[in-house]
Amino acid sequence: MNQITPPILPEPTLRRLPWYLAYVETLLARGIDHVSSTSISKALNVDASRIAKDLSFLNLKGKTRIGYEVKALAETLSDFLGFKAEHKAVVFGAGNLGRALILDKGLANYGMKIVGAVDTDPAIQGMIVEGVEIIPPEDLGNLMKNEKPAVAILTIPADAAQEVADAAIAAGFTAIWNFSPYRVKVPAGIALANTSIYAHLALIYNRLAAAPAN
Amino acid sequence: MNQITPPILPEPTLRRLPWYLAYVETLLARGIDHVSSTSISKALNVDASRIAKDLSFLNLKGKTRIGYEVKALAETLSDFLGFKAEHKAVVFGAGNLGRALILDKGLANYGMKIVGAVDTDPAIQGMIVEGVEIIPPEDLGNLMKNEKPAVAILTIPADAAQEVADAAIAAGFTAIWNFSPYRVKVPAGIALANTSIYAHLALIYNRLAAAPAN
Repeated sequence: MNQITPPILPEPTLRRLPWYLAYVETLLARGIDHVSSTSISKALNVDASRIAKDLSFLNLKGKTRIGYEVKALAETLSDFLGFKAEHKAVVFGAGNLGRALILDKGLANYGMKIVGAVDTDPAIQGMIVEGVEIIPPEDLGNLMKNEKPAVAILTIPADAAQEVADAAIAAGFTAIWNFSPYRVKVPAGIALANTSIYAHLALIYNRLAAAPAN
Repeated sequence: MNQITPPILPEPTLRRLPWYLAYVETLLARGIDHVSSTSISKALNVDASRIAKDLSFLNLKGKTRIGYEVKALAETLSDFLGFKAEHKAVVFGAGNLGRALILDKGLANYGMKIVGAVDTDPAIQGMIVEGVEIIPPEDLGNLMKNEKPAVAILTIPADAAQEVADAAIAAGFTAIWNFSPYRVKVPAGIALANTSIYAHLALIYNRLAAAPAN
């Protein structure tokens, strides 16, 4: 891709921009033409000035009284966030979560194409899930050569997470998307997102226990 | 439960405590007896003084030079985080992600028991996934009466998220675990965790694009 290198955005901005996108896409589906940052603010509980600042990274400015054009906003956000490009990924660990990600049509809509799955269990090696073959770790080299995937998706148990992350980086992956509860470390220059599903359970349980009257 | 109401902990602490647990569980599996906050700090890239402060919420103090006892630390963390209790939950949307959560043994290990799944698609209503029945929305009342689940897990498309969250709260759920990219709003007193899987893609793509040399 001969694109201009995008700016490195702050993590909180990168967390909020997809919220705006999800919201304006619901507006688009409802046939709404324009939206103000005040409306987005009310719908998402995010400060309107923060929204305006986040959107200024995209060179997007709303018009006084009219606000942002919904269709342009959705397209610019989706494009800017990389959701319209194709990023190749390999799933490490083809258990329930790994397979759900392979089956999930949503990932493709968000610019991610899973081109392979690695699993150490001989019982499932050779299986094809939605066109994606489950291969043994020793076949990863060929897959790397043929597909050049950038993103390693870790859907393995916590005790294997760091080891597999290290191996993936050694094999040439430049991004780690870690779904295990173990917080992996990566060298500088490697993109990392820790998306532990269980991490949020502690938050839910604490709030539930602290409000027993509900 | 006649337990003492636990303190409301800050969100960042509740995010970090499960990291510590995942880490000390790997130590436990390796037969390691004691761990210092310095070692945890090095392994997880979290400031040692922050770890000590986080653990002080649990009335846990390490011993000079010896550190924390690994087994006690793992058990106390797991107990304190609510992972040893049983929290009943219902999945809204029995697509790929919803079913993966039902099939996932990990959730049970973290104190969550899925007792039902709601889906509007008549084609899958009546199906049983791992002992969990997929029911139409109109059967939710009975399920609420019989099981008294507290947590509504939203694995539905973004455009239905707010509506289903509102309905779930009206039906008696006191916690919303939202996997859709739409950031739902809930009234005060309702526990909420937004766990959008796609939210982290923007982070990965931005970092990948900003370091094209890798």
